[in-house]
Amino acid sequence: MTIADPWSDAPLAVALGDPAGIGPEIVCKAWDARGPERLPPFFAVGDIRSIETVWRGPVERIQSPAEALDLFDRALPLMSVEDGGAIVPGEPNLEGARCSLDSLEVATGLTRSGAASALVTGPVSKAQLYAIGFSHPGQTEFVAERCGISGDNVVMMLAGPDLRVVPVTTHMPLIEVAPSLSVEVIVAKARTTVRGLQRSFGIERPRLAFAGFNPHAGEGGAIGSEEIDLVVPAIELLREEGIDAVGPLAADTMFHERARRSYDAAICLYHDQALIPLKTLYFDQGVNMTLGLPIVRTAPDHGTAFPIAGRGRAHPGAIIAAIRLAADAVSRRAEALPA
Amino acid sequence: MTIADPWSDAPLAVALGDPAGIGPEIVCKAWDARGPERLPPFFAVGDIRSIETVWRGPVERIQSPAEALDLFDRALPLMSVEDGGAIVPGEPNLEGARCSLDSLEVATGLTRSGAASALVTGPVSKAQLYAIGFSHPGQTEFVAERCGISGDNVVMMLAGPDLRVVPVTTHMPLIEVAPSLSVEVIVAKARTTVRGLQRSFGIERPRLAFAGFNPHAGEGGAIGSEEIDLVVPAIELLREEGIDAVGPLAADTMFHERARRSYDAAICLYHDQALIPLKTLYFDQGVNMTLGLPIVRTAPDHGTAFPIAGRGRAHPGAIIAAIRLAADAVSRRAEALPA
Repeated sequence: MTIADPWSDAPLAVALGDPAGIGPEIVCKAWDARGPERLPPFFAVGDIRSIETVWRGPVERIQSPAEALDLFDRALPLMSVEDGGAIVPGEPNLEGARCSLDSLEVATGLTRSGAASALVTGPVSKAQLYAIGFSHPGQTEFVAERCGISGDNVVMMLAGPDLRVVPVTTHMPLIEVAPSLSVEVIVAKARTTVRGLQRSFGIERPRLAFAGFNPHAGEGGAIGSEEIDLVVPAIELLREEGIDAVGPLAADTMFHERARRSYDAAICLYHDQALIPLKTLYFDQGVNMTLGLPIVRTAPDHGTAFPIAGRGRAHPGAIIAAIRLAADAVSRRAEALPA
Repeated sequence: MTIADPWSDAPLAVALGDPAGIGPEIVCKAWDARGPERLPPFFAVGDIRSIETVWRGPVERIQSPAEALDLFDRALPLMSVEDGGAIVPGEPNLEGARCSLDSLEVATGLTRSGAASALVTGPVSKAQLYAIGFSHPGQTEFVAERCGISGDNVVMMLAGPDLRVVPVTTHMPLIEVAPSLSVEVIVAKARTTVRGLQRSFGIERPRLAFAGFNPHAGEGGAIGSEEIDLVVPAIELLREEGIDAVGPLAADTMFHERARRSYDAAICLYHDQALIPLKTLYFDQGVNMTLGLPIVRTAPDHGTAFPIAGRGRAHPGAIIAAIRLAADAVSRRAEALPA
């Protein structure tokens, strides 16, 4: 079903991330693969020099996103953002950090305005961003704020070909996880996940599987109490709302192939519980999608990889998957609009 | 190289585990597959009725392990242990728990004496064993004690086709892990792992990779301090002993295919950190091997699976892998003996 919708006719905005990282290289490789990978039109946002340093293909500057649609077949459309400074792959600097932030700002604004259909963000250096005064934990929170939403109210979902995981807590020391958890936090993240799966993935009645916190999901209280105190009550509340939720499941036996078929997203309680299975299975294909925003935003689930930047060895699998997932979400949201 | 050694000429002892679990079924299926899987002679230890309930193949009782060698081609050799009680697949009872414990005792004793070359243990019900007064946390600690070794001094290694993991702590609440860890505990487990990899796997200079405790291995102290306080000092001590040790590594990026090739065992700090990657990848093939014992002991890395017992659906992959790994370890230890 196709419904005419200005949103889905706009190109995607792809911020290049840190100019000294692998972002420019993987975006160019994604453009190279646009035919076989059937990628929709997108344009890059960043410093043209960061591309010229690592790629010999055709690039054309654009002034507005709409120009990208016609151009996309023959060249990588680029909205240029320049902050000066030397660009040496693998050697980040403060000008590069400013460039990555400005690119993010431009790409986010264009997506918010509807001129771009979705936002895909390349990898940035948090250390460099903090050094120029960036006050958000990461790009996700920055984008949330630009959308008028608190970073606490969005959900980071990591997706591979047959696995989606949501970490309820993210970058905090493991000993702080248990005190940070509450029934309310788990329920809120689960609700946002359900809405995201409905809107962006077209799953009418999403099935959530909840991981336990302790080995063997606590064995009924014999090995820890977080399941009984937190996870079970959260699941009960969600079920009362009609949400399909199972668990708490033993985290070690819920991610194998047969198990993965039984749910649409795994709700995990801490970073590594979610990220270990995803990256063990899909190291080169993981996509980070932010749920709970008014716009579609995805990112490759890897960093700047400075040590291999500029060597032509960076794998574009994750950015290609991020672009495709964003485009799919845009179509799904368009379909969901009232006709 | 083949060296005459009474040990490697003896059959393996396979305890059937709980008679109402899937142990009898998977051992029979392993015997069925002895040809294509090239399994060495083994004999079962358990109640003949638990086999007859689920299998129509040939079984012959033996009085001593040596009889199994000639018999193995034409029938499953069985050393019978009976404790009465009804045997209904999926419905465990106390007599069955006694039978599983007596079978474990007999199989362990035969292996200690050298009459059996190695010990393979089928899945037991811990709940049922505790109900009859079993005072060890699990079979591993029981076997260790029968070998005159404290359960604290053995190491549980889980092995799949291209991944070996060692959890430094096992079945404890996650919030108790950090207080339980010490440099000494990590170093001791690592040393036992190195010796086990040398003796049982023939790896002359084992490469160990250590997982961090926190997300991103703590990012140099920004996300938790256990890496700096515990893992780094442990690695330094081990390196001073000439052991090849790397880390602490971010736990989410150390288990993908390319990463797995860079080490022989991953030393993990808690149960799920080790078990999530192993069971995500190798749910039906994981083997539990106890290192630090004077005997070779392996087990399939799964439980009794009461809900599917007696239905013919149990997968014998893990018990087959456990038998093969035990046999390989026996050969390696024999080779390592002075000629």
